[in-house]
Amino acid sequence: MKHTSRDIRTANRYEVLRHIIAESPTSRQELAAVTGLSLATVATLVGELLELRMITEVGFEDSAGGRPRGLVAVNASGGALIGVDIAETYVHVELFDLALNVLARAEEDMRPGENRPEQVVGQVAAAVGAVVAQAGIEGARVLGVGVSVPGQVDRATGIAEYAPNWDWHDVPLLGLLAEHIAYPLHLDNPLRACAVAEQWFGAARGRGDTVVVNLGTGVGAGLALGGGLHRGVSNSAGEWGHTTLVLDGRPCHCGNRGCVETYVGAPGIMLNLRELNPQSPLLHPEDQTATVGALARGLADGDPVAVAVVRDTARYIGAGIANLVNLLNPELVVLSSWVARKLGEPLLAEVREAVRRHALGRPFAATEIVLSPIPTDPVCLGAATFALEGALRSVGLRNGGRPGRTVPASR
Amino acid sequence: MKHTSRDIRTANRYEVLRHIIAESPTSRQELAAVTGLSLATVATLVGELLELRMITEVGFEDSAGGRPRGLVAVNASGGALIGVDIAETYVHVELFDLALNVLARAEEDMRPGENRPEQVVGQVAAAVGAVVAQAGIEGARVLGVGVSVPGQVDRATGIAEYAPNWDWHDVPLLGLLAEHIAYPLHLDNPLRACAVAEQWFGAARGRGDTVVVNLGTGVGAGLALGGGLHRGVSNSAGEWGHTTLVLDGRPCHCGNRGCVETYVGAPGIMLNLRELNPQSPLLHPEDQTATVGALARGLADGDPVAVAVVRDTARYIGAGIANLVNLLNPELVVLSSWVARKLGEPLLAEVREAVRRHALGRPFAATEIVLSPIPTDPVCLGAATFALEGALRSVGLRNGGRPGRTVPASR
Repeated sequence: MKHTSRDIRTANRYEVLRHIIAESPTSRQELAAVTGLSLATVATLVGELLELRMITEVGFEDSAGGRPRGLVAVNASGGALIGVDIAETYVHVELFDLALNVLARAEEDMRPGENRPEQVVGQVAAAVGAVVAQAGIEGARVLGVGVSVPGQVDRATGIAEYAPNWDWHDVPLLGLLAEHIAYPLHLDNPLRACAVAEQWFGAARGRGDTVVVNLGTGVGAGLALGGGLHRGVSNSAGEWGHTTLVLDGRPCHCGNRGCVETYVGAPGIMLNLRELNPQSPLLHPEDQTATVGALARGLADGDPVAVAVVRDTARYIGAGIANLVNLLNPELVVLSSWVARKLGEPLLAEVREAVRRHALGRPFAATEIVLSPIPTDPVCLGAATFALEGALRSVGLRNGGRPGRTVPASR
Repeated sequence: MKHTSRDIRTANRYEVLRHIIAESPTSRQELAAVTGLSLATVATLVGELLELRMITEVGFEDSAGGRPRGLVAVNASGGALIGVDIAETYVHVELFDLALNVLARAEEDMRPGENRPEQVVGQVAAAVGAVVAQAGIEGARVLGVGVSVPGQVDRATGIAEYAPNWDWHDVPLLGLLAEHIAYPLHLDNPLRACAVAEQWFGAARGRGDTVVVNLGTGVGAGLALGGGLHRGVSNSAGEWGHTTLVLDGRPCHCGNRGCVETYVGAPGIMLNLRELNPQSPLLHPEDQTATVGALARGLADGDPVAVAVVRDTARYIGAGIANLVNLLNPELVVLSSWVARKLGEPLLAEVREAVRRHALGRPFAATEIVLSPIPTDPVCLGAATFALEGALRSVGLRNGGRPGRTVPASR
């Protein structure tokens, strides 16, 4: 509940920049209206961001009867941000300008079994070097690198505490990466990256409490509650994939049984298919991506096995989302990540129907369920925003002690 | 995210009064430190509360080297608050002074089948009359009545939208009560009442994110997140009792199957007992209270059937709480309501062990699980605080337009 004035100053600076990035050009008056900050505070923060060259003055707009209002916009070329999505089956790296446009992209598949920390670090370092070279950016302009890794992470120490799919325990990931990458590094996990991406650029923009359900190899839920991310006391909130849906059900690599993930993560979907038809040509043993792709094509072709598997999977996803709806009563549920993207609208329709069957009527009626509208990898985008947040925080630390640069924390 | 300045003013006034009630006497300086409000804002709010005679000046304390600091304390006799707990098997009504001490209490059992709205309203009205008479309070000093009813409620309209245990749908409860009770009425549900009671006076005082798990006839979870109550978009968050724990499991009156409540609500516990030993003398058919009481005595006597039933029930509770721990990563889980109180420490020990088996290691290690330390009915206490909040809001509305009475919303 208690925050230092430096925390509040950083949060306000970030909030103002976020609105400028989302809606450029804009005026100080408009920013005051959308953030709830006083005009004086906004003017000070805008002045700071101008001085940092993160935004620029771009002219004036008429205001009804009053003085013309100065307009500001994000200075897209004022710096670059890198987002890294380390997933179970691939590494994606994207380089963004300050308007969060993608300037360069690198993708590498992760071969099964090649997921030791030093192997992953090597892949990431190579891909980061590749996007910087590809974009033709001077290294000095890279403000930071946000790194997303599945499982539980300690943001302060940069340690990947527990990644159940790889059985990583307490891997000092940022320390290992820092041996190869000279830019400031910021660690978090894909649940929170996706949630922030939806809040900034996706379905959750301007909406209330939102749950972003990630459907990939692992699954989880990013919780955007009360206007911010709900992280929990040790930054591990959102482990929806490891909530029990079927007591004494399928064994999970986390040690529990009947976890949501064992039915709706990509390996769980493969098992759903195998249980329905072990000989199905849709099944590509050892290749999740190919199997989910085959299911998507099967759906489009009306293949009855594909339809049955997706319906079966949607029943589990729907019962699990109904739990989120009953417990959290969100305004919005967003389906994100690669499995949701591949199975798309047909999956969404089945999931909606399954949520309706399992949820209480009132909270179900209050919740909208949609697919993520973000066309690129939302994890890279969210990870890049963590790097931006980190850059603003370090600006605050550098300038915090200098007289004349303090920003009023009042609102 | 956006609040009007009147909302902020009311919230700040409430926050200051809450701290004075929790910690009397206290100084303006101390209040500024614990609330994060500026000293000037606190001084204004304290001035208002003094004028309303809700608090009084009680002397001075020395401050190291500076001027003596004026101390204020709650004016216990400055008003009375009534909390009403309408549960499935009883109605409890308590009358409090402004320090939230109980001055009078009325309890009535609700006979099975006698739960039509007009029957319940008659019982509540009689009990409210009884506590006012018993306390010898002038009616004019009753600032309000907080009413808790299970299920989903619309606070703004005073409608009990859905109470699954009674099959109530859209009952205009406050309207019906207002025909008998002349004091301001405020409706909410027991999940939120218990959560607020723990925040103000119980285990959650001064703690971070807390889940208050209510174990009664119905079950649910009050969510105290980010320093406030998480209500959800339609005020129905917390329906943990209607999250699926056993897909396709026991039928629930909500229409779903395998809900947590069907295994751990008092009727679910009776079913656990019946499945284990249909002839058990511990079983009092048609009487939940007597059965849970018999189980508690059986536990104390080492009765193997009682031990087995409580272990079985604790396994379900623990798996359900593990879901909350994995999803929300709270600092604290509090077991509340009458079933938790009756089964006490032996239940707690079994629940802790079951949560440990089902939860992820990291969030489990970060969570403390305790019994509610509140000795009286926490629902009445929480409901009374909703009445207090309502009283402060109406003060704000009455004085809001008068010049010279505006309170700066800055913090």
